[in-house]
Amino acid sequence: MVFYLIGLGLGDVKDITVRGLEVVKKCKRVYLEAYTSILCYGLDKQQLEAFYGREVIEADRDLVEQGSDVILENADTEDICMLVVGDPFGATTHADMVLRAKQLGITVKVVHNASIMNAVGCCGLQLYNFGETVSVVMWTDTWQPDSYYDKIAANRQRGMHTICLLDIKTKEQSIENLMKGKKIYEPPRYMTCAEAADQLVKIADRKREAGLETAFDAETQCVGLARVGWDNQKIVACSLREMTNVEMGDPLHTLIICGTLHPIEKDMLATFPL
Amino acid sequence: MVFYLIGLGLGDVKDITVRGLEVVKKCKRVYLEAYTSILCYGLDKQQLEAFYGREVIEADRDLVEQGSDVILENADTEDICMLVVGDPFGATTHADMVLRAKQLGITVKVVHNASIMNAVGCCGLQLYNFGETVSVVMWTDTWQPDSYYDKIAANRQRGMHTICLLDIKTKEQSIENLMKGKKIYEPPRYMTCAEAADQLVKIADRKREAGLETAFDAETQCVGLARVGWDNQKIVACSLREMTNVEMGDPLHTLIICGTLHPIEKDMLATFPL
Repeated sequence: MVFYLIGLGLGDVKDITVRGLEVVKKCKRVYLEAYTSILCYGLDKQQLEAFYGREVIEADRDLVEQGSDVILENADTEDICMLVVGDPFGATTHADMVLRAKQLGITVKVVHNASIMNAVGCCGLQLYNFGETVSVVMWTDTWQPDSYYDKIAANRQRGMHTICLLDIKTKEQSIENLMKGKKIYEPPRYMTCAEAADQLVKIADRKREAGLETAFDAETQCVGLARVGWDNQKIVACSLREMTNVEMGDPLHTLIICGTLHPIEKDMLATFPL
Repeated sequence: MVFYLIGLGLGDVKDITVRGLEVVKKCKRVYLEAYTSILCYGLDKQQLEAFYGREVIEADRDLVEQGSDVILENADTEDICMLVVGDPFGATTHADMVLRAKQLGITVKVVHNASIMNAVGCCGLQLYNFGETVSVVMWTDTWQPDSYYDKIAANRQRGMHTICLLDIKTKEQSIENLMKGKKIYEPPRYMTCAEAADQLVKIADRKREAGLETAFDAETQCVGLARVGWDNQKIVACSLREMTNVEMGDPLHTLIICGTLHPIEKDMLATFPL
């Protein structure tokens, strides 16, 4: 039969498509990819089960990466689906699942949905004016990578905007628990727009102090987005320096570093003041 | 009250989200943005009306661009929505509508959905490995622009893939009807992957004949996608030279020029042979 990958979109249970909901209701087993992004604090298994009237099996990273054959078991004779926040092809892991299914001769179908990669258009910046997307990782005292700087710089040199996907730390263990071998995890941590802006300003400052030309600085225009697609979504357009003090509220946050702004983009950003 | 922009996604009537459908059913007036992309041959007003059990008002380009106040009439006291294929922020026009609504003090809410800009992930190329998106226009005998070449080149120099959105000609008039002032329009024309590949190979050939280094040539890997999100979607990965002869079937087509391929991307593309 068919292995379905079904996107859940960005908001709540009702952001599944009508077609996606029909597929969920007819599938023999319903998996929920449970380790990325907003599932940790927004949607949960119980909500989804109540809405679908179906049992939902949580598939953590181990199950998806190592045990995909468990998920795909009997998919040649029964319809199986896996639910994914956003669009199913936001993460490499799903490509692994698709490849494995195809190797097993199982038909794969995708029910697409919104992802942060297209929904950022709601701030008024045009999607075709975006360059490469970057991931910004949380710094520690001893590990402060800045490799994403070059990509933002390359985008800005061409006038392009940059989506910065902000770090999420889940299933972290304290050093104590790690040494004791205890599988006790710290609460998930989500990087904020303010933290990301602060890191970016520091990177630019260090480049400048090293005598280098910088592709952006504290005065560069940026856009903070929080909870895109939710009823309480928040969008703020300001400088990177100002963003370091903006409280965007609950996760998930996404930061955009602007490139060259077109007049209509400027007008749209003006509707999202500090 | 609220002016809603509701994305319809890429496929059929059932690709609206459950939340989107609830909004449509409660709105006082339901507009359908009728002049872009697939509405011309896929979804139509009658299908939507039957599925929603509601009257749907077609909003052509004139109405959206010049008459947005007609659409927004009474939106301060009644809920109004406009349906848009894909995600609502795929086109600049919707930014205009949003700005106008905000000027009038009307609350604007967006129900996001999949768009071709994120759904192309289904071919296995990672979304964060894409650079700037380009639009490829149909050549005529006397007008053969190639400005998108430089953008594809800049993407490839950084190893990035490029989405080529292919030209759609709607409401074209024959020279005869134009001169007679008759508002009779030719059937819509949709550029195919084969046509786009042919133009791109010609551009590369001309650059090379002019003694220039080229960022791609006839042997460069590309991916053709047709009817993404439909049940009969088709994906083919091959060289640009091969793509000039591939029959992808009904519109809409999208062509991707590959940058540097990661191993998992290569594995995925291998599942879409000629």
